[in-house]
Amino acid sequence: MTFPKQIQDLTEAFERLPGVGPKSAARLAFYLLHMPEPEVKKFGEAVLNLKSGIQLCSVCKNFCETEVCEICVDDRRNQRIICVVETPLDVFSLEKVGKYNGLYHVLHGVIDPLHNIGPEELYIESLVSRIAGEQVSEIILALNPTMEGEATAMFIAKKLQAKSYKLKVTRLGMGMPTGGDIQYADETTLSRALEGRRDYE
Amino acid sequence: MTFPKQIQDLTEAFERLPGVGPKSAARLAFYLLHMPEPEVKKFGEAVLNLKSGIQLCSVCKNFCETEVCEICVDDRRNQRIICVVETPLDVFSLEKVGKYNGLYHVLHGVIDPLHNIGPEELYIESLVSRIAGEQVSEIILALNPTMEGEATAMFIAKKLQAKSYKLKVTRLGMGMPTGGDIQYADETTLSRALEGRRDYE
Repeated sequence: MTFPKQIQDLTEAFERLPGVGPKSAARLAFYLLHMPEPEVKKFGEAVLNLKSGIQLCSVCKNFCETEVCEICVDDRRNQRIICVVETPLDVFSLEKVGKYNGLYHVLHGVIDPLHNIGPEELYIESLVSRIAGEQVSEIILALNPTMEGEATAMFIAKKLQAKSYKLKVTRLGMGMPTGGDIQYADETTLSRALEGRRDYE
Repeated sequence: MTFPKQIQDLTEAFERLPGVGPKSAARLAFYLLHMPEPEVKKFGEAVLNLKSGIQLCSVCKNFCETEVCEICVDDRRNQRIICVVETPLDVFSLEKVGKYNGLYHVLHGVIDPLHNIGPEELYIESLVSRIAGEQVSEIILALNPTMEGEATAMFIAKKLQAKSYKLKVTRLGMGMPTGGDIQYADETTLSRALEGRRDYE
């Protein structure tokens, strides 16, 4: 026994998404079948329209609808600091905090030899030439503290050192996350939290 | 800072699916942004085409593409047993086992007063009239062993008793699932496993 073709097609489409296995894919497809027709239509159209009009900002490579994104054109922001992130979602998370007033640069991934992603697949070269052209005083490497993220940060830091620009290269503070539990923290996190300890103000 | 409208629309569409929170919805939308155009198109079309041509089998109420589904028209199957299930996915799971050769009846849900789902929202009446019209000797109530599933099974069992049809009403065996762990099993499961104990063959 098989499902009708329409249901199978959608199940296969859902299965291609990250974190969706065959069982949840089928469940999602059946959920849509029970949804009212206009909502399903809205969903389908949202998928089809997704890429229309979306482009990468020519400066920071974030997704936007114009040639240059709203952050890059905002002259109230500090043009001398660039925060380098892996994905547009990271920009969104950092903006939500509301503590950072500089610019961004989105790499769209990390160096990952196991998945055939080298430095030339990322927007690293465009970062370097961007720094060469502008008055930048600090680069914050806000990549994820994973093996690949740290290797990519290291690669960029070395590349910038080699160019001997006059700028500070920094990284995010490492240690215990808020609400974390010392007894469940892994050794690397704890050791970095100890290294990064600070005086009570 | 907000995402471009196209990304927001899709994020909101994903959020409406069960088990998808705001963060995973955004992650899925951005994942689609990085997917090649033809795949995204295929996805969108699969959503839009989903409901076209899909109908409920006039006999068992399973989803199918014809007036009567392939199981109901198959005369090699035992027409005297009907297995009552909550959803079409349950039919699929039972068919995969390959041990059941009777027919099905899909309720499309369970009685759930908290969500305003009464017996008339389900295909219970059509089950009763189906039994009245055919030579049925057994009804298997294969509903989920949840509060709502058991209440619905009870409701159907009582309704059939009241009609005094000559048929057996059964339910699935209850007890330890294969691969389960006695020390982690809940009390109800263990108590039902004890009640349902069988001789070694």
